[in-house]
Amino acid sequence: MMPEFAFFLAGGPEALRIPLAMLIVFGAAKLLAELFELFHQPGLVGEILAGILIGPGVLNWVQPDNFLSALAELGVMFLLFRVGLEVKASELLKVGTTAAVVGIMGVLLPFGAGWGILSAFGGTQIECIFLGAAMVATSVGITARVLDGKGLLQHVASQTILAAAVIDDVLGLLVLAVVSSMAKGSVNMVEIGVTAGLAIGFTVLVTIWGTRTMEKVVPQMTKLRSSEAQFSVAMVVLFSLSVLAVYAGVAAIVGAFLAGVALAESTTHRVHDLAQGVTELLVPFFLAGIGLHLELSSMTAKATIILSVLVLVAAVVSKLVGCGLGALPMGRVNAIRVGVGMVPRGEVGMVVAQIGLGLGAVSQSIYGVVVFMSVLTTIIAPPLLSWAYRGEEGPPKQRFTLG
Amino acid sequence: MMPEFAFFLAGGPEALRIPLAMLIVFGAAKLLAELFELFHQPGLVGEILAGILIGPGVLNWVQPDNFLSALAELGVMFLLFRVGLEVKASELLKVGTTAAVVGIMGVLLPFGAGWGILSAFGGTQIECIFLGAAMVATSVGITARVLDGKGLLQHVASQTILAAAVIDDVLGLLVLAVVSSMAKGSVNMVEIGVTAGLAIGFTVLVTIWGTRTMEKVVPQMTKLRSSEAQFSVAMVVLFSLSVLAVYAGVAAIVGAFLAGVALAESTTHRVHDLAQGVTELLVPFFLAGIGLHLELSSMTAKATIILSVLVLVAAVVSKLVGCGLGALPMGRVNAIRVGVGMVPRGEVGMVVAQIGLGLGAVSQSIYGVVVFMSVLTTIIAPPLLSWAYRGEEGPPKQRFTLG
Repeated sequence: MMPEFAFFLAGGPEALRIPLAMLIVFGAAKLLAELFELFHQPGLVGEILAGILIGPGVLNWVQPDNFLSALAELGVMFLLFRVGLEVKASELLKVGTTAAVVGIMGVLLPFGAGWGILSAFGGTQIECIFLGAAMVATSVGITARVLDGKGLLQHVASQTILAAAVIDDVLGLLVLAVVSSMAKGSVNMVEIGVTAGLAIGFTVLVTIWGTRTMEKVVPQMTKLRSSEAQFSVAMVVLFSLSVLAVYAGVAAIVGAFLAGVALAESTTHRVHDLAQGVTELLVPFFLAGIGLHLELSSMTAKATIILSVLVLVAAVVSKLVGCGLGALPMGRVNAIRVGVGMVPRGEVGMVVAQIGLGLGAVSQSIYGVVVFMSVLTTIIAPPLLSWAYRGEEGPPKQRFTLG
Repeated sequence: MMPEFAFFLAGGPEALRIPLAMLIVFGAAKLLAELFELFHQPGLVGEILAGILIGPGVLNWVQPDNFLSALAELGVMFLLFRVGLEVKASELLKVGTTAAVVGIMGVLLPFGAGWGILSAFGGTQIECIFLGAAMVATSVGITARVLDGKGLLQHVASQTILAAAVIDDVLGLLVLAVVSSMAKGSVNMVEIGVTAGLAIGFTVLVTIWGTRTMEKVVPQMTKLRSSEAQFSVAMVVLFSLSVLAVYAGVAAIVGAFLAGVALAESTTHRVHDLAQGVTELLVPFFLAGIGLHLELSSMTAKATIILSVLVLVAAVVSKLVGCGLGALPMGRVNAIRVGVGMVPRGEVGMVVAQIGLGLGAVSQSIYGVVVFMSVLTTIIAPPLLSWAYRGEEGPPKQRFTLG
């Protein structure tokens, strides 16, 4: 009782909430990551499993809440920003045509697969379409993290994956636009056309002009007096483009990625290192956050289990084949790499399913199926990627451990 | 209307909330910081004023909410952690005796001043005592940020301020324990004794044993396979000690500071740099967050304005004189430095007033007076510190801008 008194004075449960949540989520994620690395498995799979383990499904130490979701969202923004910093716009544009084909194929096949399977199970037309839409979008964060960890971001297959993922996000937006219009009962072609124009316009303009603009703006920043001014400017660019991306209809992380690309050729290593600190702290919240959402308890009906497994297999195969065929001009080995890299759905599929839930177009059990598919594709992809890129490990990343 | 459709698809206002809040708060803080630096004023005063400007008091672009409070709390934790990383436990213990006297004097005088003024204004006994308690605790974050920015953390006066601030936090806890017991109608000396023992025990044990323990633990970490493993371990130490600090009854930031001190002699520059990234991102949320809480609209009654100004003056003078006298053995110049360094009350006074509000011991108008005093002492301190340390600028901080 007496320690409780002191505890109350320091602010009690309220003061404890934030450091305790940080400790449990970060600690568990890093512990399992280390364990996985020890057995030569990808650490980030351990981090996702840590989320399942500490989440409501198993130990129930942590429940998804606004604070953890916010850290997860910032985490994936910084992850894509950091990845963008290592990508040149010119390289992205070079693989643009292939990436566009990969993106389109990787939308058509998964959409068809999702729609077809649920139709066979007797789903309503609108529910089938929403499941298809939820299977479309790639969570490039997972793939980017794996490739970054291996020093393989500069590989031509990796660049294709990144470019295709951006195109995929824009296409996913359009699919969602059509599907949402249908759920509301009317498809307004003008509206969808404007949505498309806005999203494509934003992405293309920032990719083409961003780098040049930043190459003019950033050197001016040496005149600033504040400490770490270049980092501050980079953060403002990051948040501005994330906000603009949302206004243009694409995901905030697309803006974050393009901000990184725009700054790639003009910022110092110091900015990379500082951004890396934020990324290292927050990415475990993104990864464990994916795991936190998986509740196996909702998957009891036999039909749901069968459907879930079928959807999972279809989700993997349709991306692998669709994107792989799209990338075939790059050779068979690279085509497999690209196909595997586009498999993880992560948080994106869940967001689509949530919109469907909100519109009343998707039932709770289909939502559960989508979450299962999203988490499992995300867990499967990293070992597949390691296998697809075997023997291609990049040079060790430049580090400044002078201490 | 049409862009709104795309906007909705990217998640709408919900998806916008986080990047937009980041952009406005971070952007405004850094803009005003740069403006202040341009006129040779301390940048962090600009960051606090940015909070007032964008907050409910003036432009009302941003309201304090859970997300921003969480970032502010993490920000001040990382600030104290980073400061701790540059402080050696042995140096802290060296100035221990002086710091203890500084801490005790810096508690007695402000408490007496607050109690006396409100008594003269006819406040109830318990309200007078709470105002006194709210004037006790120093917000060391502000001073630490100024001294860190000037490369003066190693100065003997700075070390004394840091050690005194830790002692001050423990003493403040005890004052709050006594005061809270009184508000509840009974003073339980055993309870207060246990509270004291717990807080002092935690602080002393971690200060004395922390460094040695980490010097044994950290070198083992080279065996870990995960990337940036040393940073992960440092984060786990940071969050663990913050949690333990709250259980021991002291503030989470005291735990964060002691975690930094414990790790100071065993971690690499890489860990410093990564932690610095998080600090640079989050500290503006702490500083602007202080400003966000100031609502001048509540200060309309003439008596309240007079009381506020009196309390402000008393808050500055009592710390300056109390701590200055305590530090007089270090010479007059250092005594003034220590006195000035202990002036800012920042978020700590507000927390005490909030507890009083919760216990029904403090009225809304006295709460307003405390917020005014907290924000203004925080704004006044940095220019005073610059003046007190004039001519003592440290060596430029080591940077790794090899790019």
